[in-house]
Amino acid sequence: MIKTVYFQDDSLMLLDQSQLPDKLLYEKCDNPAQVADAIVRLKVRGAPLIGVTAAFGLALGISNYRGPAEQVDQYFQATRKLLASTRPTAVNLFWALKRMEKAYMTHRHLDLETLAQVLRAEAEAMFAEDIAINRAIGDHGQEVVPKGGRVLTICNAGALATCGYGTALGVIRSAAVRGKIDKVWACETRPVLQGARLTVWELMQEGIPVALITDGMAGYTMQLGKVDLIIVGADRIAANGDVANKIGTFSLAVLASYHNIPFYVAAPLSTIDWSIDNGAQIPIEERHQDEVRLIAGSYLTVPEVEVFNPAFDVTPQHLITGIISEKGIIKPPYLSALEQLKTN
Amino acid sequence: MIKTVYFQDDSLMLLDQSQLPDKLLYEKCDNPAQVADAIVRLKVRGAPLIGVTAAFGLALGISNYRGPAEQVDQYFQATRKLLASTRPTAVNLFWALKRMEKAYMTHRHLDLETLAQVLRAEAEAMFAEDIAINRAIGDHGQEVVPKGGRVLTICNAGALATCGYGTALGVIRSAAVRGKIDKVWACETRPVLQGARLTVWELMQEGIPVALITDGMAGYTMQLGKVDLIIVGADRIAANGDVANKIGTFSLAVLASYHNIPFYVAAPLSTIDWSIDNGAQIPIEERHQDEVRLIAGSYLTVPEVEVFNPAFDVTPQHLITGIISEKGIIKPPYLSALEQLKTN
Repeated sequence: MIKTVYFQDDSLMLLDQSQLPDKLLYEKCDNPAQVADAIVRLKVRGAPLIGVTAAFGLALGISNYRGPAEQVDQYFQATRKLLASTRPTAVNLFWALKRMEKAYMTHRHLDLETLAQVLRAEAEAMFAEDIAINRAIGDHGQEVVPKGGRVLTICNAGALATCGYGTALGVIRSAAVRGKIDKVWACETRPVLQGARLTVWELMQEGIPVALITDGMAGYTMQLGKVDLIIVGADRIAANGDVANKIGTFSLAVLASYHNIPFYVAAPLSTIDWSIDNGAQIPIEERHQDEVRLIAGSYLTVPEVEVFNPAFDVTPQHLITGIISEKGIIKPPYLSALEQLKTN
Repeated sequence: MIKTVYFQDDSLMLLDQSQLPDKLLYEKCDNPAQVADAIVRLKVRGAPLIGVTAAFGLALGISNYRGPAEQVDQYFQATRKLLASTRPTAVNLFWALKRMEKAYMTHRHLDLETLAQVLRAEAEAMFAEDIAINRAIGDHGQEVVPKGGRVLTICNAGALATCGYGTALGVIRSAAVRGKIDKVWACETRPVLQGARLTVWELMQEGIPVALITDGMAGYTMQLGKVDLIIVGADRIAANGDVANKIGTFSLAVLASYHNIPFYVAAPLSTIDWSIDNGAQIPIEERHQDEVRLIAGSYLTVPEVEVFNPAFDVTPQHLITGIISEKGIIKPPYLSALEQLKTN
């Protein structure tokens, strides 16, 4: 399986997803600012991967720190803040940085070299855990996929969005291994086309049957009876079960409800933001207007037109059939079901 | 107002909409085969305009006919069939060709030059009538637009889709003249981007405030309370009120229903196909897979991926608040309301 992020000597290698499927290139980062920039520019994307990559970025920073010993705390905090400022919606980012901060605070009395090793090990552990979590999500989730299943998804919640295997695509992989997948409908996912560029590429690499549609075709494809269920990823889940995910997800959920098609969210428990009551409190990133106006460097519209470009939307919990986590499938009522997971 | 089609001496000039908004170019056609090709390639598009352009194409054919007099009937019928074969969904095409055939049959005893003049006059009459019809649609339709109205639309049902003024955009124009339009949300309308390329350009030309969104953003824009009503065009309306229109329209109608936002269809009565009971009988054109895979000549996905590319979808009548026609706003129950219009 393709590696999305790894250390090579003293550098961090990041798969540049903005070049896929044309080119399979890695970006070599020698400092955390380069890592932050790669996240901002969507070279690295996908909620779980953003979190782990930021953790690697912090480890990279301490590994390559050559400043005065008494300023390392300050450098760590500044780097943590820089990485936290890259993207506002995916909560895994803040979760991962908090975990790294905890490791740092616990071990900051050690010499710098040992401290760097500890942080690298912590990031590597998160990487390995993420894959294990995805496999557990896949195993739980495949149970909801019927034999001959035709599954619709949006964006890329796959190996490319995680440390490997994937969340929504992890469920599809796990079902495909069991011979249950007849077809995956990949919504192209404008404006950044993660569905067309990444999900299609990732599934074709493994020979899982996939067909591409534009986002506006999803409703009609459901109306024609060609979709058995929908599985999507998540960037943040509120305590009541409301889900922020790639823009267009909410429309799919409404259409699924209209057609009585099950609508599942697949995500690790680290996606849950226990601190907020509902989806209205999730900050939704608005990205540059040119992301919609331009494609492959050319304007597809009048260059001066006003654009509204939210990167995510919020799906209310009542439209969600179940949340597929590494601990099993969470069913409504979500408030109490999620609360129970928190105390466990 | 921009002319979408006109005679210049013995040639037919067609605005090449596939080049907009980059270039404002006219294609010079000397024979009906060129006109048919322009329709197939979406240089000319929009249900009402396709119909009138095909009528002009027939008139062009007879004008420039230089074959034996005894074969003109045969030539007319072959040309009519060629033009009818260009696109299957928009019924205005067949309506317009039938009207031209009637004019031809009535006047075929005349000498060829006079017959050609009659057909040209008939096509010109249809052109003028279309603009008058659009203005009537606009006047009736503007009544449903509230002051400060924020109207969402898809594709281009504007001056560019008709002989001038437009159907859905005709309503918006008429409301804008009365100072009622606060904003038009233009869905970009993948794969051919008629919203981003044509609707944005057309509205900006007239200073009507417009903002562009991707098709997947429409639902979230509604959820945020930023849309007061939706107005779309139509390619064919069944006797029960089911509407075929640009792919993505059905999703908007479901989302409008979910949010209790009024959803209107604006179309001339020539869009109604009295011969079919419901939308399931409307032939839906599937276009080439590369239309989705390629943009501006480059692949945006894996070139070999399977694609489903329906150009239209069907919105069931129960999701439609009203059909804005030149005779007023038709309200449910559509079956009887439309039947009444037929007998009038």
